[in-house]
Amino acid sequence: MIECFGGIWVARLPCSAVARPDLMDRVVNLSKRRGLVFPSSEIYGGFRSTWDYGPLGVLLKRNVKDAWWRSMVQLRDDVVGLDAAILMAPRVWEASGHIATFTDPLVDCRNCKERFRADQLPASGACPNCGAKDSFTDARHFNLMFKTFVGPVEDDTSVAYLRPETAQGILVNFKNVQTTTRKKPPFGIAQIGKSFRNEITPGNFVFRTREFEQMEMEFFVPPEDADTWYRYWCEERFGWYKELGIPEDMLRLRPHDPEELSHYSVGTSDVEFDYPWGWGELEGIANRTDFDLTKHGEFSGEDLSYFDQENDRRYIPYVIEPAAGADRATLAFLLAAYHEEEAPTADGKVEKRTVLRLDPRLAPTKVAVLPLSKNEKLVPISEEVAGDLRRLFMVDVDAAGSIGKRYRRQDEVGTPYCVTIDFDTLDDNAVTVRDRDSMTQDRVSLDRLVDHLREHLPT
Amino acid sequence: MIECFGGIWVARLPCSAVARPDLMDRVVNLSKRRGLVFPSSEIYGGFRSTWDYGPLGVLLKRNVKDAWWRSMVQLRDDVVGLDAAILMAPRVWEASGHIATFTDPLVDCRNCKERFRADQLPASGACPNCGAKDSFTDARHFNLMFKTFVGPVEDDTSVAYLRPETAQGILVNFKNVQTTTRKKPPFGIAQIGKSFRNEITPGNFVFRTREFEQMEMEFFVPPEDADTWYRYWCEERFGWYKELGIPEDMLRLRPHDPEELSHYSVGTSDVEFDYPWGWGELEGIANRTDFDLTKHGEFSGEDLSYFDQENDRRYIPYVIEPAAGADRATLAFLLAAYHEEEAPTADGKVEKRTVLRLDPRLAPTKVAVLPLSKNEKLVPISEEVAGDLRRLFMVDVDAAGSIGKRYRRQDEVGTPYCVTIDFDTLDDNAVTVRDRDSMTQDRVSLDRLVDHLREHLPT
Repeated sequence: MIECFGGIWVARLPCSAVARPDLMDRVVNLSKRRGLVFPSSEIYGGFRSTWDYGPLGVLLKRNVKDAWWRSMVQLRDDVVGLDAAILMAPRVWEASGHIATFTDPLVDCRNCKERFRADQLPASGACPNCGAKDSFTDARHFNLMFKTFVGPVEDDTSVAYLRPETAQGILVNFKNVQTTTRKKPPFGIAQIGKSFRNEITPGNFVFRTREFEQMEMEFFVPPEDADTWYRYWCEERFGWYKELGIPEDMLRLRPHDPEELSHYSVGTSDVEFDYPWGWGELEGIANRTDFDLTKHGEFSGEDLSYFDQENDRRYIPYVIEPAAGADRATLAFLLAAYHEEEAPTADGKVEKRTVLRLDPRLAPTKVAVLPLSKNEKLVPISEEVAGDLRRLFMVDVDAAGSIGKRYRRQDEVGTPYCVTIDFDTLDDNAVTVRDRDSMTQDRVSLDRLVDHLREHLPT
Repeated sequence: MIECFGGIWVARLPCSAVARPDLMDRVVNLSKRRGLVFPSSEIYGGFRSTWDYGPLGVLLKRNVKDAWWRSMVQLRDDVVGLDAAILMAPRVWEASGHIATFTDPLVDCRNCKERFRADQLPASGACPNCGAKDSFTDARHFNLMFKTFVGPVEDDTSVAYLRPETAQGILVNFKNVQTTTRKKPPFGIAQIGKSFRNEITPGNFVFRTREFEQMEMEFFVPPEDADTWYRYWCEERFGWYKELGIPEDMLRLRPHDPEELSHYSVGTSDVEFDYPWGWGELEGIANRTDFDLTKHGEFSGEDLSYFDQENDRRYIPYVIEPAAGADRATLAFLLAAYHEEEAPTADGKVEKRTVLRLDPRLAPTKVAVLPLSKNEKLVPISEEVAGDLRRLFMVDVDAAGSIGKRYRRQDEVGTPYCVTIDFDTLDDNAVTVRDRDSMTQDRVSLDRLVDHLREHLPT
């Protein structure tokens, strides 16, 4: 493959995949070094597997969430949005079954007093902390919801929970939303927001954290159509990840075994991603039946059935739920995009480059504006060009270091286009636009630049 | 004023303002009725002054947050974004002073055991609940942070707090962000996210709630420039609300009195809005000095000073903080936009219309597509037009009721443009585009429609 690079036509060397055991380390390292994801409260030694999204990470995650919202809400006429509070009435969690059943079995070591998940103890029966044998208490149920108190008095009447899922905020609003929007089943309600689970064993970077962000949609359908819609949403959601650039061989749709199903579900499939440590969940699509609306009807005393005027019948809608994790999706897009390859330098040599082959819609920065040098004539033009582009795109201006180094810096954070302003620009009013993936360069006149980029950067 | 309405030229009657005491009721009522804001957990009787944003409310609030992000991050080269976790290391709140001083004074009634804010007791000295006189205990300090426990054991070592402000998530990341972005002061870090305060007296709809969303930016500057930047941000932020359509006479900038200042600030001004109950805070702009970075440096042992290479000196940056409330801003935009006026109907009569004169950038729905009737020839064209427009805008399709009623329905939720597909469309391939504010109507050919709307709906 022959391409133009730095004005010289050179052969491009083949891309080499990164070995799986190294991939996670490299992505975590890149994330820290370039401001994608930092350990939370890091100056205080971090805090219990929580993470902060840095300047580039917040843009990437926003783009993931916006892409979901666009596909689930904006582009559809049968789904509307919602943003419910994290703090809800505790009765919600009684009705949903979370207070009774959202638990892990825990045991204490009688010797060292450490606490463990009963289902993760070693077969040897010896405490993983102090080595004592057969020292464990019987398992007790530990609820995974974070508890707090609302109002000035701490007692049973003021207990509240941080929601462990956004879904219930949607389900209890079914009637309000249906009435105000006059939607008829089949229709859905979509929501993006934080949820909290007091996981005993968080880990794998942002994959399993106690605080996390969900992208959930509850789709209300006539009971007899539930299975059809369940299969529709399995396909639709699987396709979303593919369409945003995750290679199909890194994705699979795995139906749950009957014994794996939640108490409320007659069918669940996970969209799984091939993480460096193995297949793991990106999203679950569940047929929740009429369990939730029935329970909330019983516990609240409100009638949550729907009257179908056309067919003169009343029914409690079934719910199909595609529930995705925004953090997991962000991590998967990062892992799938991470490449190291050998690339030609401007002076004809070959060097390694790291490149995030993110879909341009997800890339944190869309365009980097690079004045060839800090020359007093080039910098003002660069500022002007950047100012124009900022009205449409997230733009970065970088004037430090050699142009080759700056290309590498943009490649490794996935910037699709670099616009270089050089001394010729002063004469020809044109700039060089370099493509991240092909590394080809186009000379584009300044008055065509916005249109050129708009054509190459679809919404 | 003469305008074309429903094909007839008529005089438009003057707009009448809504009396202040009624305004709040009408906006709360509209919010409930049209799906802007619902009481949270409403089927369970609500939950302690929490609120859920409905299908139109979530769009409005997203637009407010996106407008802030665009103006603070995308359009500037001196501010970057961040998204820090809600759960942070408890030492953060020791360093910031929140554990020691973020309190309200509370008293108990010895007779009925109710608890009250000491600074809000009636002058009579009698309990507002049971009427007992001089029954109060001495005031005790009640911390406003919500407390929970992280991990399987509930003890002092596992206590964590829900952040009472997003600011500290930015401040503890100063070094990480500065290093990875290579920004030099003056530069800022912006964040949007939920915060939690266990307010004793929440109220006034979404104005004061225990769970709320902030839009905060910390701007790091050389100490000698702090006052200049403080004044710059006061102006800038005041201007933001004006530019997005709040009339200047509903806004004021109020500098805090010296005794009103927080312990960390040498200067604070509030951008205030003229709420129906009086002037109230939209946003505070504070000169926080080097208090935060100094404290976090002391408590963490990390050096949070900045080395200024150009001037060969090291200093701890001062911080200017514009801290806005996303919910308050959303409410203010709603209140300022709410109008009732008399408008001509299609048959030449006059009727009252409610119209939200929201800036088009904030309007939940940008375009409504209205087939004149449910005729089998009009509906498919409407679906096709809506499908095209959805790629660019939030679109609503409404086919139910008279066209005049449908215009009213769109007016009262602030939809800037209605596109009506009628029987002439079948012949002339054109549609009627009606403007919300002027109620004028343009005939626009279908192949020009996207461009026409794009010109009238700026980003």
